[in-house]
Amino acid sequence: MGQQVHQHTLPNGLVLLAERMDHVRSVAVNFLIPAGSAFDPDGQFGIATVLAEMLTRGAGDRDSRELSLALDNLGVDRSESAGIVNMRLGGSALARNLLPLLDIYADIILKPRLPEEELEPVQALSIQDIESLEDSPQGKVMVELHRRYYPAPLNKDRRGRSEDIEGLTIDAVRAHYQKFVRPNKAIIAVAGNIEWGALKARIEKLFGAWEPGNVPDVVPQSHQPKSEHLFKDSAQTQIAFAYPSVPIGHADYFAARAAEGVLSGGMSARLFTEVREKRGLCYSVGVRHESFRDRGSMIGYAGTGPDRAQETLDVTLSELRKLKAGVTVDEIDRVKAGLKSSLIMAEESTGARASSIAGDWYFLGRVRSFDEIQGAIDALTPAAVMAHLERHPVRDVALVTLGKNPLTISA
Amino acid sequence: MGQQVHQHTLPNGLVLLAERMDHVRSVAVNFLIPAGSAFDPDGQFGIATVLAEMLTRGAGDRDSRELSLALDNLGVDRSESAGIVNMRLGGSALARNLLPLLDIYADIILKPRLPEEELEPVQALSIQDIESLEDSPQGKVMVELHRRYYPAPLNKDRRGRSEDIEGLTIDAVRAHYQKFVRPNKAIIAVAGNIEWGALKARIEKLFGAWEPGNVPDVVPQSHQPKSEHLFKDSAQTQIAFAYPSVPIGHADYFAARAAEGVLSGGMSARLFTEVREKRGLCYSVGVRHESFRDRGSMIGYAGTGPDRAQETLDVTLSELRKLKAGVTVDEIDRVKAGLKSSLIMAEESTGARASSIAGDWYFLGRVRSFDEIQGAIDALTPAAVMAHLERHPVRDVALVTLGKNPLTISA
Repeated sequence: MGQQVHQHTLPNGLVLLAERMDHVRSVAVNFLIPAGSAFDPDGQFGIATVLAEMLTRGAGDRDSRELSLALDNLGVDRSESAGIVNMRLGGSALARNLLPLLDIYADIILKPRLPEEELEPVQALSIQDIESLEDSPQGKVMVELHRRYYPAPLNKDRRGRSEDIEGLTIDAVRAHYQKFVRPNKAIIAVAGNIEWGALKARIEKLFGAWEPGNVPDVVPQSHQPKSEHLFKDSAQTQIAFAYPSVPIGHADYFAARAAEGVLSGGMSARLFTEVREKRGLCYSVGVRHESFRDRGSMIGYAGTGPDRAQETLDVTLSELRKLKAGVTVDEIDRVKAGLKSSLIMAEESTGARASSIAGDWYFLGRVRSFDEIQGAIDALTPAAVMAHLERHPVRDVALVTLGKNPLTISA
Repeated sequence: MGQQVHQHTLPNGLVLLAERMDHVRSVAVNFLIPAGSAFDPDGQFGIATVLAEMLTRGAGDRDSRELSLALDNLGVDRSESAGIVNMRLGGSALARNLLPLLDIYADIILKPRLPEEELEPVQALSIQDIESLEDSPQGKVMVELHRRYYPAPLNKDRRGRSEDIEGLTIDAVRAHYQKFVRPNKAIIAVAGNIEWGALKARIEKLFGAWEPGNVPDVVPQSHQPKSEHLFKDSAQTQIAFAYPSVPIGHADYFAARAAEGVLSGGMSARLFTEVREKRGLCYSVGVRHESFRDRGSMIGYAGTGPDRAQETLDVTLSELRKLKAGVTVDEIDRVKAGLKSSLIMAEESTGARASSIAGDWYFLGRVRSFDEIQGAIDALTPAAVMAHLERHPVRDVALVTLGKNPLTISA
């Protein structure tokens, strides 16, 4: 299938991306607006999440219920959330419902009512979400790791802080909307059975008058990652760790993904083999690459019983250290097979494609072709991966553990 | 796109199903073998889960590591698990790798080594999995609800019991394999870019000599569902409930799905509106339909803070009771839009199609066409849904709560 990606930038800065997929009947729409939690002002941690929820509580001619009904009547499977940098809105629907769906999203984004009477239930929901984290030790340890590993404001959790959320007024939410929900750095990505001409015309009509603003950039502060044990009277010990890698777009990016794959891609990967298969230490263990524009990281997780936690940590750290001793041709071949297979399978999903083209534009300012990505994967060799690991060795591992007893990092 | 579903039954009883999807490059394979947890003998609860994990620890010419490597080299995204009735194995891969993938799965299913030295790590893993449930109150409350709501043996949890798993011997695991991993009631479902002739020939060659056995049926005992509060010192109160509905294949099945949709399908559904949107009582609340061959049920869940749990339960039960007062045309239209949209979107995923044709065959002994399902959805009316609710009213609700304080069921 030939890849057909269209791009158009509106005068107000809004970027429209669309990938035509001929053989599907569905469409996925992804709005990325740089209004994520990183921009939550001091004393208002959680406002991005509250705003994302408030946006769908009535917009244009429709109140909250009418808006939900209108989307449900189009069969839209939708979601709204605040990420660290971007607020994300969107969903999937039948391709024939794309234009009416965009009409509704234009209301949500440009004419939200942000009604005062909806604020209290939304605050209550957000506080519930914070409290529920206490019953999810795996979620909790990752939040605590991010808080200590990343510099402010990248270390903020989308859930925010209960006291701050309780103190929010509708005026504060409206002011946050006015300041941050702006087109100049926003992206609309659409993938599926679309007609580019009609789509582009509708987007221009709906979003052309959206006024640009002074949207700030995320400026990470200087920071030293911290390790820490947090006491919790839980059945298992949660182990989370992070160390620096390179971001998407870096010349070493695919070599970094290969290093991730050697450790964690597939059932024969090193961490899986040593921790799970040979020793039965824990069900899930692995590392995954995570990228901001200016930095990439490897984020790792394992959860196990307190009697096995120290051994799990020792074996995991030992595998990280062993990486510099070399990777084999067989390992890299296996990683390449996995990356290519995932790439091709993701081509078949409108949701995956909408998310992928939006991400490419956000990180790179362009959409990578399948051929480009496939070429980069094909070019991977053990030597290239080792050269990357020379330049970016596994070091400065930040470790956060959660459970009854602290663990020791062996020398 | 014209639907192309092929079916062939081998002399040993194994059913092969395949759906050709012309425009994809991937393929999904789903093995359903009636060797689920319901068949775990007394004193060996958890043996199906241990066996599912052991099957991939070496098979045919390959030891555990070689087997993982071979699958990883084909770029297979795979999983194995024991369900209540069926053990499920399978994965997704590029269509060009289908035949070599089947060769490996034939080894896993017909020639597993079930090596003694792998038993201990697998037991350790299974026990870890049981312990980790203590740190997941949401998972825990659903397990406890199933245990009390369903009759034995449908009420068994795949995780089993730690004492039983510790006591398992390799001989017991091998005997369980011999008895239950048999072709007579097994299903292989394949969806994607396949050639039927080549697929059928390969399946016949690989699985033709698989010897049938005396595979028992699941025979549910008579049972009275129980409600109970379970104390846990958790941050949130978990609420789980269940009540009888009709199974897949019943004349009322789509009417039951519509009742589910009125309560819980989409953001404008009754439970979502009343519990989440208006009152902000909890983030997620809903019911979903669940089917065994002989019975269907509605399973509900809500999780919230202890101070809001009683109100959440009251509002939820009140909505269940109100169903008999009637449903509107608008509600049914919304539900129909949602069901049709989901149906069409699932057509585009090889994984969803493989799982769907396997499920149809298991429940109905045939594969439903899209036209048939779409016709059943189109035929839904408020009157049909109300007639269903007359015959199958919301009653005998079993309630399990988990948290600091018990809740009261109001009259």
